[in-house]
Amino acid sequence: MANITKKVSWSSRADESGATGEGTPLLNGSEQPRHSRQDSLRGRPKEIPHNEKLLSLKFESLDYDNIENQLFLEEERRMSYMGFRCLEISRWVVCGLIGFLTGLIACFIDIVVEELAGIKYQVVKQNIEKFTEAGGLSISLILWAVFNSAFVMVGAIIVAYFEPIAAGSGIPQIKCYLNGIKIPRVVRLKTLVVKVCGVICSVVGGLAVGKEGPMIHSGAVVAAGVSQGRSTSLKRDFKIFEYFRRDTEKRDFVSAGAAAGVSAAFGAPVGGVLFSLEEGASFWNQMLTWRIFFASMISTFTLNFFLSIYHNKPGDLSSPGLINFGRFESDSVAYNLYEIPLFIAMGAIGGILGALFNVLNYWLTIFRIRYVHRPCLQVMEAMLVAAVTATVSFTMIYFSNDCQPLGPEHNEEYPLQLFCADGEYNSMATAFFNTPERSVRSLFHNQPGSYNPLTLGLFTLTYFFLACWTYGLAVSAGVFIPSLLIGAAWGRLFGILLASITSNATIWADPGKYALIGAAAQLGGIVRMTLSLTVIMVEATGNVTYGLPIMLVLMTAKIVGDYFVEGLYDIHIKLQSVPFLHWEAPATSHWLTAREVMSSPVTCLNRIEKVGTIVDVLSNTSTNHNGFPVVVQVAGSDEPAKLCGLILRSQLIVLLKHKVFVELARSRLNQRKLQLKDFRDAYPRFPPIQSIHVSQDERECMMDLTEFMNPTPYTVPQETSLPRVFKLFRALGLRHLVVVDDQNRVIGLVTRKDLARYHLGKHGLEELQLAHT
Amino acid sequence: MANITKKVSWSSRADESGATGEGTPLLNGSEQPRHSRQDSLRGRPKEIPHNEKLLSLKFESLDYDNIENQLFLEEERRMSYMGFRCLEISRWVVCGLIGFLTGLIACFIDIVVEELAGIKYQVVKQNIEKFTEAGGLSISLILWAVFNSAFVMVGAIIVAYFEPIAAGSGIPQIKCYLNGIKIPRVVRLKTLVVKVCGVICSVVGGLAVGKEGPMIHSGAVVAAGVSQGRSTSLKRDFKIFEYFRRDTEKRDFVSAGAAAGVSAAFGAPVGGVLFSLEEGASFWNQMLTWRIFFASMISTFTLNFFLSIYHNKPGDLSSPGLINFGRFESDSVAYNLYEIPLFIAMGAIGGILGALFNVLNYWLTIFRIRYVHRPCLQVMEAMLVAAVTATVSFTMIYFSNDCQPLGPEHNEEYPLQLFCADGEYNSMATAFFNTPERSVRSLFHNQPGSYNPLTLGLFTLTYFFLACWTYGLAVSAGVFIPSLLIGAAWGRLFGILLASITSNATIWADPGKYALIGAAAQLGGIVRMTLSLTVIMVEATGNVTYGLPIMLVLMTAKIVGDYFVEGLYDIHIKLQSVPFLHWEAPATSHWLTAREVMSSPVTCLNRIEKVGTIVDVLSNTSTNHNGFPVVVQVAGSDEPAKLCGLILRSQLIVLLKHKVFVELARSRLNQRKLQLKDFRDAYPRFPPIQSIHVSQDERECMMDLTEFMNPTPYTVPQETSLPRVFKLFRALGLRHLVVVDDQNRVIGLVTRKDLARYHLGKHGLEELQLAHT
Repeated sequence: MANITKKVSWSSRADESGATGEGTPLLNGSEQPRHSRQDSLRGRPKEIPHNEKLLSLKFESLDYDNIENQLFLEEERRMSYMGFRCLEISRWVVCGLIGFLTGLIACFIDIVVEELAGIKYQVVKQNIEKFTEAGGLSISLILWAVFNSAFVMVGAIIVAYFEPIAAGSGIPQIKCYLNGIKIPRVVRLKTLVVKVCGVICSVVGGLAVGKEGPMIHSGAVVAAGVSQGRSTSLKRDFKIFEYFRRDTEKRDFVSAGAAAGVSAAFGAPVGGVLFSLEEGASFWNQMLTWRIFFASMISTFTLNFFLSIYHNKPGDLSSPGLINFGRFESDSVAYNLYEIPLFIAMGAIGGILGALFNVLNYWLTIFRIRYVHRPCLQVMEAMLVAAVTATVSFTMIYFSNDCQPLGPEHNEEYPLQLFCADGEYNSMATAFFNTPERSVRSLFHNQPGSYNPLTLGLFTLTYFFLACWTYGLAVSAGVFIPSLLIGAAWGRLFGILLASITSNATIWADPGKYALIGAAAQLGGIVRMTLSLTVIMVEATGNVTYGLPIMLVLMTAKIVGDYFVEGLYDIHIKLQSVPFLHWEAPATSHWLTAREVMSSPVTCLNRIEKVGTIVDVLSNTSTNHNGFPVVVQVAGSDEPAKLCGLILRSQLIVLLKHKVFVELARSRLNQRKLQLKDFRDAYPRFPPIQSIHVSQDERECMMDLTEFMNPTPYTVPQETSLPRVFKLFRALGLRHLVVVDDQNRVIGLVTRKDLARYHLGKHGLEELQLAHT
Repeated sequence: MANITKKVSWSSRADESGATGEGTPLLNGSEQPRHSRQDSLRGRPKEIPHNEKLLSLKFESLDYDNIENQLFLEEERRMSYMGFRCLEISRWVVCGLIGFLTGLIACFIDIVVEELAGIKYQVVKQNIEKFTEAGGLSISLILWAVFNSAFVMVGAIIVAYFEPIAAGSGIPQIKCYLNGIKIPRVVRLKTLVVKVCGVICSVVGGLAVGKEGPMIHSGAVVAAGVSQGRSTSLKRDFKIFEYFRRDTEKRDFVSAGAAAGVSAAFGAPVGGVLFSLEEGASFWNQMLTWRIFFASMISTFTLNFFLSIYHNKPGDLSSPGLINFGRFESDSVAYNLYEIPLFIAMGAIGGILGALFNVLNYWLTIFRIRYVHRPCLQVMEAMLVAAVTATVSFTMIYFSNDCQPLGPEHNEEYPLQLFCADGEYNSMATAFFNTPERSVRSLFHNQPGSYNPLTLGLFTLTYFFLACWTYGLAVSAGVFIPSLLIGAAWGRLFGILLASITSNATIWADPGKYALIGAAAQLGGIVRMTLSLTVIMVEATGNVTYGLPIMLVLMTAKIVGDYFVEGLYDIHIKLQSVPFLHWEAPATSHWLTAREVMSSPVTCLNRIEKVGTIVDVLSNTSTNHNGFPVVVQVAGSDEPAKLCGLILRSQLIVLLKHKVFVELARSRLNQRKLQLKDFRDAYPRFPPIQSIHVSQDERECMMDLTEFMNPTPYTVPQETSLPRVFKLFRALGLRHLVVVDDQNRVIGLVTRKDLARYHLGKHGLEELQLAHT
């Protein structure tokens, strides 16, 4: 669609693909026809036109396949059974810690937001009360708007200037991470700090945002940090959990962290597990799942416990999550068979509104990529949104005359009287002035008649556009709660209208039920999750009765929404040109084989290779390979070289850094025995090749890769069909897959980008272009 | 432990392993040292001593890897995008049908059991009332015992004589199926019919059994039948869903069926999905999960709908499962922080009691394998158990004097007055005389004081031994409900004791809460499921408040129980010597490589092979291979033959049956073009080689395997470590994995048994023996 210039905010250093080779391939196995896409890359300017059909070459992949080189195998073989038991126990300990810390962070966010919102409410309320009768409410408006903008400004500044990756909910980034893509800086401590402060500012700033989405990102960062037993940012190494310093283990912990985040956000431990699995894991492992579940449980429990102390009811475990939908009483929630078509209709509405939301946000994001990419502009936009939100709310409240009696059973903590009679409160003000979480709860549970239809209609309309504008700003904020709020508002409206058009009002007596269904429909229409979202909603309502309707609604919303446009997270992932691998190869891709898909020719290294050659290969900026097949030539024969291993750029860097050279003259005197520990210490921030100095003498030395390469890389023959290659690649979480001929000679390399390139468009199979965006 | 003679009730025809080769291997790639285990196989008698350390060679594996031969690829390439869409839609339709039919079956079982139990109750009650005062209650006892025995006899006869595989809950068999092992006759229509009738008989016969476990098996059978669009037993082919006639697709549907079964049994659609995934799927696929979820939802909905009609409350969807734990009201269910240690203690008790149950049942099963393997003995044992159950119950009721007032709020449908005063009922009789489902519900919900501690203690004790004796009888019956009942009884007892030893009785006021926790602990201690069971319990209680305690309890029960002995299902799987693959390779197996693990030498076939040779290879009973690497010799060269494909026994059988021969003289005139349809029609019951007549002339013809073999089988080099081989094998659901050298020559074959052989015992890594049991 849009064909504009794009500045990518997630940046990276290198790419896996061996396909862009202007370099001198050391081994031209069998010369393959170069793909046309390679030509199109030459001479591309730094800022290329943004195009939906591009795939960025900048993202590195994570390696979920263990590098079983000799060092690793020796270590594993030395380890006793007790050693493995200890490892297993430390995995549980780490998961417990992840859950605990994630719960604490959620608790911290919640308490700070509560306190700040309370202060804000007091100040604004006093001010409004002062001016309500005196006239001059515009001063109150200005006060309110300034208040909000100030908070949002702080939130936007730390995000835009210090850590842009902390913007938004972080869910797309975590989805990518779990999919196997290394998004730079996404799991760093700095990101976490900015995220937490940012989300507090944006929620207190009154934006149409939630604090739930960011919890998922926070949990993931906590997990990545705790599991490594050190912090590179703080330069502290606790010398623990060193075994876990590799992609495979780290991924497992990050999925536990994401689950713990969901669990803390919604009080939904099972939903958290399902979220992690639905979004991330391709290989289901029972023990891993249990650990994830454990982390989730600890997380919600921690949050619950500390909040109970904060609320002066220690031991009362009734706030399992940041958002609490309140308890749906069993009698009022019963639904009947003939309501199911209504629910499905609501699902369809949710799907359509969700698609509309996503399309609008898509356009907005394109606009932002094009024009609003400077930090100062981003901060200004965020402040503008905050001011507009405050103004719109204020205007709506001002012109609304929906007064409700302030009964003893009211559950508004922050009622605003405004122009209502004494003992009454303004219900529009309730909807706007409360934190979004509270508003959702009021919409679900307030007595029938608490809101009049006009209030709800106007509220839905304005909030829809505000939320849509807000998502994608340079502030840390989630889209879950605004979606629920929009849905709850129109759902309640739907319920009220039903009651009014039917004579028998008792059946449709409870609009709260429709608010719940509407919330599910709207959220489903925007994010398009089904199974995990069903469970999250069920756990958050604390009642399984609505399982079936919620599931039907979410399914409908997904089907209807998918007809128009993808889910919000997928749109944002696509806009970043991330090589995201879906669950299966595109349906009509059987006519493609590994031969067509692979990158070739491939730069190979010899098992005993000259240091100079290695340095040259690594320094060659035009190729930027990350993995190199290692081949062996039978001495004295003219047979072609055969594949004998695979070595990663990061391993070579460590080898060069430690000068593991064989000096031919001095018979290995210089060679230090390298340990697995050296690789682990360097993980995950391996230095660039430019930072390693190799003298001219050293360039003449040889390097023996035998011990360090993975001697048994997975291979496929070149006739293998794309779905088969895809399945192997995806199921094992590979990073490089070597394509060999029937003589075991390397003829190509398949990486993530080669597979992610193919996708099903409107007109059948389409091929994305690769670009150094 | 036990070293006795064993008769295996699951029998099979062939095995995958190429390791038992007395046959003449056509290609001895590189001669490997033969394993000592092979020697131990020679001259083994038909009935070998039963030994825990054996692995049966009789079980075939399922092939979850698509056989992408030329025929298949041609079909896929011909298919348009719309074709794939239609396939996807029919997958959803099939899942809907599976859910619907599973729900119907559950409904049928429930209604028939209700009706028959009602009749039995009326008759026995009248009889007891007649004799209570007149004396001569022994006549009532005899009437009751005869009643029960008669039902159980019918149930046992159909199981023992017609379909022994229908015995028990079927969960171990479904676990094996989902793990990738073909248990003969497990998903046939006949099995379903026997299962349904059998479970009705055993429940009405008053055994200590539940009807929930068998629902899982029933759902799986329904799925296997519906998805194939035909019934081989009924000889009807509906000519639909032909695309799904292969292991890959069928497995997916069977997991949906199992989930639908769980969903119908417990009203737990999410629990069903998790059950399927926890027990079965190794590769998590989002779309598949959604379909499974859909089937589960439809299943519980169908059951709910039809039961609502049966209960004369059409449209009231309040009975989502066969068992309904009743509604826990929000106020009474609150728990407090200091109760958590108590819950964990209960989990530990559940783990110990569960382990005791499993050990007793293990000994009993060994005894049964040894002495009770004739059908008539099995029927007699079942009748004996039925009579003893009736007698014990009756005696307990007779000597109990726990009379409770029959208030207006009582929820016993079948109160028995016996020797109690008018307006009262005997609470022991309630516990024993009701169906177990009702008893569980009473234990959860009856007012404090409904049961006195002695009643509960005695009930727990007797029911524990009865249930333990009953599981493993030749009747269709599950162990879920008896476990829950035992647990609920001692849990309630625990609650009552707590209330009596503490002064402040109001805190521990509700023993129903402890009954629930006890039920979870006991069930967890026996079956050792955690995540899925947590969700099932939560969904069945309709209240998420107990999520955390139930999870803690189940975890504790699992950890404590695993310390003593495995879970009940795993014990039964092990006793059948099934080559079950766990989630990961044993921890200390890194020192093993593919070379040590693989079977060799391997029988290979040439790409163009003589028919006579193929017939000989297939007929060689001593080898019984199921998969053969296909090799190609470069014409006129003395280079060793290279791997070029893999072909299955079943494919060769179909080829022979259709006489797809190349007659050298007549230039292929005779060769009929074979379609994928021919293979699908033969699936899954391929005829044995003996039934195919090949004339002497035909033996001289050649057969071209190129089109039919899988041209790109997965291979590993011989140095690959066992965990790596295991991961590849398990993640992709392979059946054969070819081990090649660096020249791409076949040197071995890894099958399921080669991997399942290694397991972690008390003294580190152990190797099981392979045997033709």
